[in-house]
Amino acid sequence: MISAGFSSETMSNPRAERVREVAHLATRGGRAKLDQFLAEGPQAVREALKLHAARAAADQDPVVAAVYATEHALERYPEFIDLVAAIPHLFARIVTDEVLAAMADTVTPQGIVAVCYLPQTTLAEVLELEPKLVAVLCRIQDPGNAGTILRAADAAGADALILTSGSVDIYNPKAVRSTVGSLFHLPIVTGVDFEEAVESLRAAGHSVLAADGYGDRNLDDFQDASTRRRLGESTDPDSGAAIRLEDPTAWLFGNEGAGLTPEELSAADERVAVPLYGVAESLNVGTAATVCMYASARAQRGNRDK
Amino acid sequence: MISAGFSSETMSNPRAERVREVAHLATRGGRAKLDQFLAEGPQAVREALKLHAARAAADQDPVVAAVYATEHALERYPEFIDLVAAIPHLFARIVTDEVLAAMADTVTPQGIVAVCYLPQTTLAEVLELEPKLVAVLCRIQDPGNAGTILRAADAAGADALILTSGSVDIYNPKAVRSTVGSLFHLPIVTGVDFEEAVESLRAAGHSVLAADGYGDRNLDDFQDASTRRRLGESTDPDSGAAIRLEDPTAWLFGNEGAGLTPEELSAADERVAVPLYGVAESLNVGTAATVCMYASARAQRGNRDK
Repeated sequence: MISAGFSSETMSNPRAERVREVAHLATRGGRAKLDQFLAEGPQAVREALKLHAARAAADQDPVVAAVYATEHALERYPEFIDLVAAIPHLFARIVTDEVLAAMADTVTPQGIVAVCYLPQTTLAEVLELEPKLVAVLCRIQDPGNAGTILRAADAAGADALILTSGSVDIYNPKAVRSTVGSLFHLPIVTGVDFEEAVESLRAAGHSVLAADGYGDRNLDDFQDASTRRRLGESTDPDSGAAIRLEDPTAWLFGNEGAGLTPEELSAADERVAVPLYGVAESLNVGTAATVCMYASARAQRGNRDK
Repeated sequence: MISAGFSSETMSNPRAERVREVAHLATRGGRAKLDQFLAEGPQAVREALKLHAARAAADQDPVVAAVYATEHALERYPEFIDLVAAIPHLFARIVTDEVLAAMADTVTPQGIVAVCYLPQTTLAEVLELEPKLVAVLCRIQDPGNAGTILRAADAAGADALILTSGSVDIYNPKAVRSTVGSLFHLPIVTGVDFEEAVESLRAAGHSVLAADGYGDRNLDDFQDASTRRRLGESTDPDSGAAIRLEDPTAWLFGNEGAGLTPEELSAADERVAVPLYGVAESLNVGTAATVCMYASARAQRGNRDK
């Protein structure tokens, strides 16, 4: 027996019903049926367990349904023994390499996975938290792009991520992997109707900015105006832009091929282009999202510090 | 016959020697043997042909050795007929779908590929162009990351990209695809010795900044100091930082797993961290590179405009 948290019994049958259920979480149907998804690898599992512990302390819904790890993984990442032992009633099992391989979608899941509950967070719940910076993914299709934007949103300190209906399922294994744990760092709302999202965010006081390569406003101008206000140089509170980056902001990021639709663009308060200083005709949506969210973060944090 | 540029003969034998040679460019050995690489898809081929025409006009070395397209692709992208016809002596052939599939690495190459010469650009040649912003990729391994950084460097108007020895081959098909044509927008130097790169760039007047999550300097401070100088608020030309983002700058970006080595870090003038405002413990190297290069571009362009 390695720890109090992990059961002393080792699961060794890769064809067991439970193993097949976990493997089935790689499919959208499997996730919908069980209301669960799979986090693979030490970093994702660690962040899931941390969030689980924090929520348990606040008497909130659980995050993790079960943890499965190989003996070898627990030798390599011994911190999981304590992390698991610290959570009462957590289902945790040691499994053979074969069982773990049968459960996981990854070729090299590094010996540890966690079955997690699909969050049921609603847009209304997110708005109650009075978010300052929100990323809205509009029909983004590529799991890697969705994961990259979530991770950048997390780094920039965004308060929530919203995926409109028709977006990639961010709980599919490839997307989960590309978030490297950020999935457990900020609230995520999925399957939201686009118009409802924009109306609710605007009603909550957000500027709604469309990231658009053909936008008629340049992100630099918004940043300069914000910096001038922060440095106290401008006496005009609206200098250069009616929209202020330091105010609560929701960014709309569009589909990687087609961008935002005309309807989505016209729903925004402004269409903002990330400047292209070189020869490139366009930016990857993940790169554009990074620049936009960091611009907002700098404006909001800098002005908050004052 | 579709055009004057494309030969009227259609290549239809997928087992022909020439087809096998093109297919072999998917391997490092094949590229080294022929000093060529393959650009796949309309966007990459278009950028290659544009650069080829511009270089031909300036009596410089050719970029494209051959273009192969299916009838269907030329119907869908008719601009290639004129683009090819405008370049004298360009080897251009119409091929069957089977031949194109045999040549290309991609499952869906969209019917057009170009065989391009591997550039022989040297570091000395790049420095003669007096670059203001240079990205140095230090042992980056993932082709997608290298491509993303190149594309972001292009967007930020960087003047050159340098890959140190031990980096991924940016001319492998996956990397070429992920650059979406940026490969033909700025000079790229490969296989450069790290110490030689840093010494040459410093001798050319560049600040050498290491992008480092554990850096003791915060990118925000450099940006604020630069903005204060630009807005004329600061009377102290060195306010806040001896390093000025608006001066010629070379950014060092490290391996995705291990980051920059202690030796690489100590070779830099400063170790600069991109601020993490949220819970994320780290940034993807592509995301970090985007934020760093856009910070430099803003500082350099803004201050140049003055």
